[in-house]
Amino acid sequence: MFCPVITLAQQLIKRPSLSPHDEGCQQMMIERLKAIGFTVEEMNFGDTLNFWAWRGGHGGAPTLAFAGHTDVVPAGDESHWHQPPFEPTIQDGFLYGRGAADMKGSLAAMVVAAERFVAANPNHSGRLAFLITSDEEASAVNGTVKVVEALAARRERVDYCLVGEPSSTERVGDVVKNGRRGSITANLTIHGTQGHVAYPHLADNPVHRATPFINELVNTEWDRGNEFFPATSMQIANIRAGTGSNNVIPGEMFVQFNFRYSTELTHEQIMHQVQAMLERHQLRYTIEWNLSGKPFLTPRGKLVDAVSHAVEYYAATTPQLLTNGGTSDGRFIAQLGTQVVELGPVNATIHKVNECVKASDLQLLSRMYQKIMEQLLV
Amino acid sequence: MFCPVITLAQQLIKRPSLSPHDEGCQQMMIERLKAIGFTVEEMNFGDTLNFWAWRGGHGGAPTLAFAGHTDVVPAGDESHWHQPPFEPTIQDGFLYGRGAADMKGSLAAMVVAAERFVAANPNHSGRLAFLITSDEEASAVNGTVKVVEALAARRERVDYCLVGEPSSTERVGDVVKNGRRGSITANLTIHGTQGHVAYPHLADNPVHRATPFINELVNTEWDRGNEFFPATSMQIANIRAGTGSNNVIPGEMFVQFNFRYSTELTHEQIMHQVQAMLERHQLRYTIEWNLSGKPFLTPRGKLVDAVSHAVEYYAATTPQLLTNGGTSDGRFIAQLGTQVVELGPVNATIHKVNECVKASDLQLLSRMYQKIMEQLLV
Repeated sequence: MFCPVITLAQQLIKRPSLSPHDEGCQQMMIERLKAIGFTVEEMNFGDTLNFWAWRGGHGGAPTLAFAGHTDVVPAGDESHWHQPPFEPTIQDGFLYGRGAADMKGSLAAMVVAAERFVAANPNHSGRLAFLITSDEEASAVNGTVKVVEALAARRERVDYCLVGEPSSTERVGDVVKNGRRGSITANLTIHGTQGHVAYPHLADNPVHRATPFINELVNTEWDRGNEFFPATSMQIANIRAGTGSNNVIPGEMFVQFNFRYSTELTHEQIMHQVQAMLERHQLRYTIEWNLSGKPFLTPRGKLVDAVSHAVEYYAATTPQLLTNGGTSDGRFIAQLGTQVVELGPVNATIHKVNECVKASDLQLLSRMYQKIMEQLLV
Repeated sequence: MFCPVITLAQQLIKRPSLSPHDEGCQQMMIERLKAIGFTVEEMNFGDTLNFWAWRGGHGGAPTLAFAGHTDVVPAGDESHWHQPPFEPTIQDGFLYGRGAADMKGSLAAMVVAAERFVAANPNHSGRLAFLITSDEEASAVNGTVKVVEALAARRERVDYCLVGEPSSTERVGDVVKNGRRGSITANLTIHGTQGHVAYPHLADNPVHRATPFINELVNTEWDRGNEFFPATSMQIANIRAGTGSNNVIPGEMFVQFNFRYSTELTHEQIMHQVQAMLERHQLRYTIEWNLSGKPFLTPRGKLVDAVSHAVEYYAATTPQLLTNGGTSDGRFIAQLGTQVVELGPVNATIHKVNECVKASDLQLLSRMYQKIMEQLLV
């Protein structure tokens, strides 16, 4: 089988670009984009390689950016792979290898879509752009967020962004993500007084004291979600108290809990509500909040319509618009006021051994991406 | 000031016998006891020195044993001591040094009391005995418990036991311990299903699931105590769950809790009640129990009466009979069916820097011990 999408995907998978390493993937993309007239700006920060590339778009015409990452998560135990994870192989119509679905297949589909689009529309009126990073999977501190800051600082306008994250569940295009929940973490310490278990009246057990609060925290309905978002979810991720000895009443308890929240709430409301609950339970506490992403939502409009139409055209299915699952770099790009949608291959095997993607899905995906360009930039 | 009790206490304090080390303390006691006709049986186990000594007691006359330990807890930061902890000094009528109150002062009082008692009553009808260990403060596995096992194996009868633990709170003899609470620890693991916080429906958070159980555990009244025992107390000593990451729902939670329980309950009842609670909350769990001591109680009778009388005689106060506070080796001796009472100096400074005891209290204590011997053995 010869197909430029599959060939490029294989070339990318061969490079073991574990976060934040890029291993030459971006240079390969940059060469291809330069060859079709893109201006490429490398925006490297710390250990992370990023680039911003653009073509066309004179006058007030809109910008459509394709976003993605060249880094992959570790292969895990390589002995569990049928084939070495960085030696892409095709078997029964599936392309295997670490990054095949998340998201080197999408990167290949984007580049080839751009080549075909430019060949057919050399004088496209809108601006076509790429925002690529080598750290989305790890800390991500020097990746998309920094590029977005640089673009914002110089007032660059990005109207639409298509993120190639693997959004699909069973067939390519069956699910499109038009938003993501917010994520905020509380690091809570409940203060008590340490003592001997034989003399509880001389101590103040923070575990006992905090139990009614935790009970309320766990049983609170934060919201009911909305058309696009599931209800806000709170999960206690870590809890610890005690010296290890069975005869010492602990002096403090640490509880870390994370909210995945809908656009029905703001992080300020969550913080306020939790702190009011702590006050109501008359606890002595210290709390630190870590906001890792505000929720974003791209309602129906030009981008969602173009994506839906492209999926319907090639997959004969109407995509579901969902906002569930983990965060993505889309949350940073949305801060520019950009409409952001995620469309990528089936995510069933991502981060697992024997990661794979249907080869024909990547071909379809490339066609869908081209169709989106045609609708928004011509 | 010359007083044989204070002199012997000083000689014992000079030896830095950190558990389970004895540093020659027992040999010093053994020599004194042999000199007044005691038979001494050394019963050393592992790293721990113990001895059992006895004198007199022909026929069916009762045995009164004095019990104690030569080991001390560490001195802590020696720079906080006014005087070096193992150089006993007397200041303003107080004897300072590690072990002065817990319990080398009591050991000196016992030995001198025995010397005076034997001099006055060379042909005492009851048997006078000593049970001394060098590990009561640390693991205690090779100490009194092993001596008691050996005595039980050969069916030795010990009717009365006076433990020299510092029972007093403000004046010597104001509090006598006539029992101790039981202690049992539960090591509970609640099983859930680990997962990503973004997909709570695919996981089962054991912290959330166990919260109502813990709430009930903390709010349960186990009993109301009785004449001699305060109400049973449950304390959560350790709790932990989580991988350390804020985006992972933990797979299990560990909770360790300890009961200090009265004679109104048995450890079997506690275990049954907790496990019924776990079942009622429909939790998946694993539980391991560790019983470190059953409660014991020595009600009013010959020993309590003799001790009360001795205190009244020398201190002009009626002692309070209490069972609160931590465990002592008395719990092991009580397993022999022995009446056990604890009477020792004021415990305000034990295990602290600048541990001290009023010198005149040790002299009074020695007189009280002698009075107890006279009431029960003559």
